[in-house]
Amino acid sequence: MSDKLVNLRDIRFVLYEVLKVEGLLDSERYSMHSRETFDMAIDAAYKLAREVCWPAYTSMDKAGVKYDPRTRKTEVPESMHRVWAASKEGGWFGITSECEHGGQQFPGTVGRAVEFILHAANTAARMYVGGTNGAAHLIAAFGDEKMKATYVEKLTAGEWAGTMALTEPQAGSSLSDVKTTAIKAKDRDHYLITGTKSFISSGDHDLAENIVHPVLARLPDAPPGVKGISLFIVPKYRFRPDGSIGEFNDVVTGGVEHKLGLRGQATATLNFGENGDCHGWLMGEPNKGLAYMFQLMNGARIATGVQATGVASNAYQHALQYSKERLQGRAITEKDPTKPQIAIVNHPDVRRMLLTQKAYTEGMFALLAYAANLTDRIRISSSAEERERAQDLLEILTPVCKAYGSDISFQSTVLAIQVYGGYGFSEEFPLAQMLRDQKVFSIYEGTNNIQAMDLLGRKVVMKHGASFKALVGEIAKTIEEARGLAPLKEMTDKVEAALRTVIDTTQQLAKLLVEIDLYMSYASPYLQMFSQLVISWQLLWESVVAQKALDGGSSERDFYLGKLAAAQFYVNNDLAYAHTTARIIKTGDRVALDCQEAWL
Amino acid sequence: MSDKLVNLRDIRFVLYEVLKVEGLLDSERYSMHSRETFDMAIDAAYKLAREVCWPAYTSMDKAGVKYDPRTRKTEVPESMHRVWAASKEGGWFGITSECEHGGQQFPGTVGRAVEFILHAANTAARMYVGGTNGAAHLIAAFGDEKMKATYVEKLTAGEWAGTMALTEPQAGSSLSDVKTTAIKAKDRDHYLITGTKSFISSGDHDLAENIVHPVLARLPDAPPGVKGISLFIVPKYRFRPDGSIGEFNDVVTGGVEHKLGLRGQATATLNFGENGDCHGWLMGEPNKGLAYMFQLMNGARIATGVQATGVASNAYQHALQYSKERLQGRAITEKDPTKPQIAIVNHPDVRRMLLTQKAYTEGMFALLAYAANLTDRIRISSSAEERERAQDLLEILTPVCKAYGSDISFQSTVLAIQVYGGYGFSEEFPLAQMLRDQKVFSIYEGTNNIQAMDLLGRKVVMKHGASFKALVGEIAKTIEEARGLAPLKEMTDKVEAALRTVIDTTQQLAKLLVEIDLYMSYASPYLQMFSQLVISWQLLWESVVAQKALDGGSSERDFYLGKLAAAQFYVNNDLAYAHTTARIIKTGDRVALDCQEAWL
Repeated sequence: MSDKLVNLRDIRFVLYEVLKVEGLLDSERYSMHSRETFDMAIDAAYKLAREVCWPAYTSMDKAGVKYDPRTRKTEVPESMHRVWAASKEGGWFGITSECEHGGQQFPGTVGRAVEFILHAANTAARMYVGGTNGAAHLIAAFGDEKMKATYVEKLTAGEWAGTMALTEPQAGSSLSDVKTTAIKAKDRDHYLITGTKSFISSGDHDLAENIVHPVLARLPDAPPGVKGISLFIVPKYRFRPDGSIGEFNDVVTGGVEHKLGLRGQATATLNFGENGDCHGWLMGEPNKGLAYMFQLMNGARIATGVQATGVASNAYQHALQYSKERLQGRAITEKDPTKPQIAIVNHPDVRRMLLTQKAYTEGMFALLAYAANLTDRIRISSSAEERERAQDLLEILTPVCKAYGSDISFQSTVLAIQVYGGYGFSEEFPLAQMLRDQKVFSIYEGTNNIQAMDLLGRKVVMKHGASFKALVGEIAKTIEEARGLAPLKEMTDKVEAALRTVIDTTQQLAKLLVEIDLYMSYASPYLQMFSQLVISWQLLWESVVAQKALDGGSSERDFYLGKLAAAQFYVNNDLAYAHTTARIIKTGDRVALDCQEAWL
Repeated sequence: MSDKLVNLRDIRFVLYEVLKVEGLLDSERYSMHSRETFDMAIDAAYKLAREVCWPAYTSMDKAGVKYDPRTRKTEVPESMHRVWAASKEGGWFGITSECEHGGQQFPGTVGRAVEFILHAANTAARMYVGGTNGAAHLIAAFGDEKMKATYVEKLTAGEWAGTMALTEPQAGSSLSDVKTTAIKAKDRDHYLITGTKSFISSGDHDLAENIVHPVLARLPDAPPGVKGISLFIVPKYRFRPDGSIGEFNDVVTGGVEHKLGLRGQATATLNFGENGDCHGWLMGEPNKGLAYMFQLMNGARIATGVQATGVASNAYQHALQYSKERLQGRAITEKDPTKPQIAIVNHPDVRRMLLTQKAYTEGMFALLAYAANLTDRIRISSSAEERERAQDLLEILTPVCKAYGSDISFQSTVLAIQVYGGYGFSEEFPLAQMLRDQKVFSIYEGTNNIQAMDLLGRKVVMKHGASFKALVGEIAKTIEEARGLAPLKEMTDKVEAALRTVIDTTQQLAKLLVEIDLYMSYASPYLQMFSQLVISWQLLWESVVAQKALDGGSSERDFYLGKLAAAQFYVNNDLAYAHTTARIIKTGDRVALDCQEAWL
């Protein structure tokens, strides 16, 4: 079994050699940090991952979450308590939170790298911590002073836990159909919340003395649809005047899901106000709840990409290690059956599977770190123009991080299982669980179909194509830089051709905006084509850095040659299909649109 | 929940309208049958599937297989006993077996349709029966008279059970490394078998009073490699002189696997001769065991395609039904959030997922039925030439049935989960289990990577390309027929273009045979490209029949229009990628071949 959950060398490569995150140290916000503190955070995260999170991985899955329908209490596996305690002790709830709230104020880029490591080791476990962190950030961003004082430090310290409560049984992808209601309590500052939320990650557990739910609900006079959704903060327990934990706030757990994967995760149905006595406090202005929630949601979408890629990276490291140990068969040219068997890493078809995994996980990690770096630039840049450009880039890349990230991470994990052969299908090895865990990432935080519609229907056309143009500009910049390196010529030509194809397809598609149904019917293939370009761009960028290191006589030749091989492999294989998808879209195929229900 | 496990209308379409299986009734072998008996078999299989197999699906998975390490006994779930009993009672062990052995002597085409239905309902359960059937066929084909008299009827009646025991811990893909030994017992007709076999499906259980294991083992003087493997029949219990069950034959169960899926299946490790007293009987000639076993294995490879496609069909029927019931969101053009939500089948992106599933499952079923029909023609044709041609076609299509069949069935099931959204990730619905069950089909009976090497390394080049040419001829015939139908022009052009591309790529590749490593490094992409052509051909063939039915004024317009839509969708989308794969292969990309272990 592999003892490498992720490739730390690759993480450092992306942070320091590609993104040059030390550049962030010039800002006042990060001035207390240094390359040394970044390294310490990464190493300490890896230590936590190796020593606490990963040992709990299988046991949490086996033990599962216990819900007692009589007491309506939820208990998480014992090993999760250890992860929670270690996360509290090490300050892993507030890696990127402000120092004034008890956080460590690391840049988001470093924070995502840390999360990547922790998700690789035990994604169900890290979700409890990450969800708490998300709620803290949301309240810090939009809460009033009292709310902030009440919650943010407690959440940042891991004293209390947090969630986000959007989904309802009849309102999954369609948030405009949220029905939960909020009625102002007479002469009091709270509202009475009534409604059922389902599929709430970390929705109930016994890890912390309180759980804080940001809840989407409607005021009585709210307009219909998304313009009538408000955001409320609803704690599981109320507070006494002295701030200590008070009485139960009528947030009743209806049950926990029995799931394919993430079985250590308490995915709960929550009945708010089952007894008519659930108090919630309005955050910000009425009817603007979805906008606030989307700040959290956008982060959660990147986080989904991070967790998917983390799991896939761990699966890849396992497959790689196994491929070096497992002896099976001989070289094709070896006809003598008495010769010893060789390690399967030597079979070209196994290397093909490993290279695919390497390209997928490393390409995605590079993109996710880049997206995190954009959030840092948005936060620290003094130039409004730079901030806007970074925001535009982040907007258009978010669906790629979430949807393509979860799709290829799943595929990557499937390949890891294939490398393991029969042992991949055995629950005695961790690969099977990784596959089970992976499957939800294409579904939650907005299904990948919703992401595709977000990309083609909103992000590509927003601000007259400003996001799209900004991205094209960044890709062109990398191509320009790669042009200076002769060994990268073929790869650069291919990325440039794909860029032209994507631009051209996007323009052609724009003509279809008059027939919006047809336009939108291409959302999913468009996302795939677009994403293949984006990942190729990231891999080309990495190749530029790797080639320069090689040209500079680096002693780490194997590492850099590996970067080039993965990039070439992806560009020669996956990216080639982007042109085909473009052709399919441009031919105006109407089959999916015109197909009648009765024909299926 | 769907009550339709498969589309019976489509099964009849393939059998009667496409393959015209009534043509088989002219042969003496099938002269006792009629369209009515075929229909009865299909309807009765569906009844068994609906009433016995499907109700046991989830419970078998939940109960799992119990192995007691103290007694070393294995117990299968209670509901499996009901499936076994009903299968015995209904004669479902010997659907295609000879009447003289107690079978029903149905054509293989009908037999595969029946299996498809039963696998759709409960594939883990059907494996116990199918494995037994496989052992019966093997002994009937190659056993001596005594062996046949001892085993075949008992197996065909489901009195005893059967397996096949090839894999060993150090010999999975590499069968030439089988180590199990067989030493002739002095002055007796049996051999003493010693060795461990792993991952044996239905390897041990309490369903029947005996279990018959065909076992690959080596004689002491056997040459190394695959030319030194012999086949032995090893019963769990020996026989008394009167034929009744005698003493335990030292086939000790070492354990059963805890698996991702197929949890009702007793996948066992078997220690033959742990106490030095395991008797086996040689089948046929020494050192020819692998050739005999491959008769069974080739059937098992088609069967794997059948079970994968069966599960995917059930998943598709569930997704389809769910998509008609689940209300979520509104049409893109509907901006009024007070309007009721619509069923998700109305969203083009959902229809895209459903059409993909329909094309995959129906295209694969057509191919599998065609392959079964080839076995029938091999069996009944009086023309040696026709038999040889059918055998050639069967050989080259077998890896497609197994590898592409399992790959796209898995993808199809993934899409079914995506249609279900969060409920797809819940173990309260059967989709999650279907995904878990599916994963092994790409692994066992020769991994899909082995299948790809079989296709490109053996089948394409065998007999100077005779198999390949025979297939090209069949595809050209269908194209020719489709040419007569104007509405099919675009589809026909595309299939013809793909045929040219595949021929061209195969010829180009042949030049690489001098560098066999490089040639074989394209095996997996080649299999994918090749398979996309094969499925397109099947769908075009179906379209010809459907178009003629429509032109003839059929009252089943929806059914036939659905056939055309699925075919168009696959040809417009999946088949388009075959050309890209061809280009990738032809550019001679060497990255996977040249990549060094240290770079990964």
